Amino acid sequence: VGEPIDRLLDLLDLEQVERDLFRGRNPSRSSGAPGRVFGGQVASQALRAATNTVEPDKVVHSLHAYFLRPGRPGQPIVYNVDRIRDGRSFTTRRVVAIQNGEAIFNLDTSFQRPEPGIEHQLPFPAGVPDPETLHNDPGWGGNDRPVEYRDCPPAPPASRRHWMRPRGTVPGEDPALHACVLTWASDHGPVGAAGRPAGLGHGQGMRASLDHSIWFHRPFDVNQWMLYDLEGVAAAAARGLARGAIFTQDGEHIATVYQEALLRVT
Amino acid sequence: VGEPIDRLLDLLDLEQVERDLFRGRNPSRSSGAPGRVFGGQVASQALRAATNTVEPDKVVHSLHAYFLRPGRPGQPIVYNVDRIRDGRSFTTRRVVAIQNGEAIFNLDTSFQRPEPGIEHQLPFPAGVPDPETLHNDPGWGGNDRPVEYRDCPPAPPASRRHWMRPRGTVPGEDPALHACVLTWASDHGPVGAAGRPAGLGHGQGMRASLDHSIWFHRPFDVNQWMLYDLEGVAAAAARGLARGAIFTQDGEHIATVYQEALLRVT
Repeated sequence: VGEPIDRLLDLLDLEQVERDLFRGRNPSRSSGAPGRVFGGQVASQALRAATNTVEPDKVVHSLHAYFLRPGRPGQPIVYNVDRIRDGRSFTTRRVVAIQNGEAIFNLDTSFQRPEPGIEHQLPFPAGVPDPETLHNDPGWGGNDRPVEYRDCPPAPPASRRHWMRPRGTVPGEDPALHACVLTWASDHGPVGAAGRPAGLGHGQGMRASLDHSIWFHRPFDVNQWMLYDLEGVAAAAARGLARGAIFTQDGEHIATVYQEALLRVT
Repeated sequence: VGEPIDRLLDLLDLEQVERDLFRGRNPSRSSGAPGRVFGGQVASQALRAATNTVEPDKVVHSLHAYFLRPGRPGQPIVYNVDRIRDGRSFTTRRVVAIQNGEAIFNLDTSFQRPEPGIEHQLPFPAGVPDPETLHNDPGWGGNDRPVEYRDCPPAPPASRRHWMRPRGTVPGEDPALHACVLTWASDHGPVGAAGRPAGLGHGQGMRASLDHSIWFHRPFDVNQWMLYDLEGVAAAAARGLARGAIFTQDGEHIATVYQEALLRVT
């Protein structure tokens, strides 16, 4: 294992236990909160498991997931795939991630045979500094982590904004693998953004991701700087919702992310 | 059956076939495209089925659904509920809607025991005329439909904007029933909004809802005018994503909706 991204790629190389049943390795050290597996890891492995059961000419275009229970580091996670629909244009999969007989996570995801269509997108935000000029690390990006993050200066109404890029190269042109890496990376940021408009600072209170949704709008190469523009949408009842828009440095809007977080102020 | 909303309330009164299995009536005339059941009806019945298996002191706060196959009008739909998690604060349910042995729709939804927390929300849009001053019917609101809609004048960047209110009264204070009615109502609008920024006009091309997500931010009474502010977020590859924000007339942001739609220009 050479570059830090290779450790994530290794985790995405699932063992096929049965046709629709996969087992994912799960290191004892995780980049999530102490004692629990990072949600982005479970989400990316679940997406990999779903993709392994889909014809290779179909590409993931959306996923919706719930985090049900904390995953335990150091213990494999089993991914059970339900082939709920195989259509001509679209294929849908449901995945349940299991540890110790309990569902810790579930994912629904949809794949599309690519076809042309009308185009529009969100504008790339104004005044964003180039990643090469930034050195601020939001704390998830230690030199050994699979993805490098560089914080942008505060710029309301954005609740936070950062550049991100794999530490190393994601090989080949398998769009699924690129989507898995982006899924992993997209789980850093939303929880903090969800409480920011109400003044909730970094690390305050008890927080956890409740769900995670991604829509992949366009094909993309994950081996480049990508801007993650995050905005807190609404919060009440100890829950906060964040929106994320992911752009290439060229300004292409490649994905939209939504995540609701538990925000308990203790 | 007196008021138009009563017909929807009647459809939400599911037959309990087994503890976690429900059957929903399904009239031969639907408000969806000819020959297929309106997606909002399936979504609201599925949410009802899930809620029927959850302790009454927990309230739905989010749902994520995929439309898999068109439902056939005039034939009951069976809702199979999976109690994937019963937690202390949160409970999660997965529902599969079945007709003729095939899954036509699936829903994941989460319920929360209400607790206090920090608050913020999107601003109520400026320059929205009061519903009482409007008479424009976007076409889904014939006098016999369960919900009345009144179109607002075009106001970019909104892709469309309308007021909506049940035709008749949703009784009692069961938040689940109010959420079911809002879910029904929220499936009118996003498909049109998803293509609007690219100039796709009303009724152009072949369209269908692909998924549907709702986050319910705050408790609400569905018996009032609610503003549905919709914006096309991105489109490419024959798919378009729309965001909806739902406000009370007092300016409370009660829910956020996301829907991706198939947008084939023929």
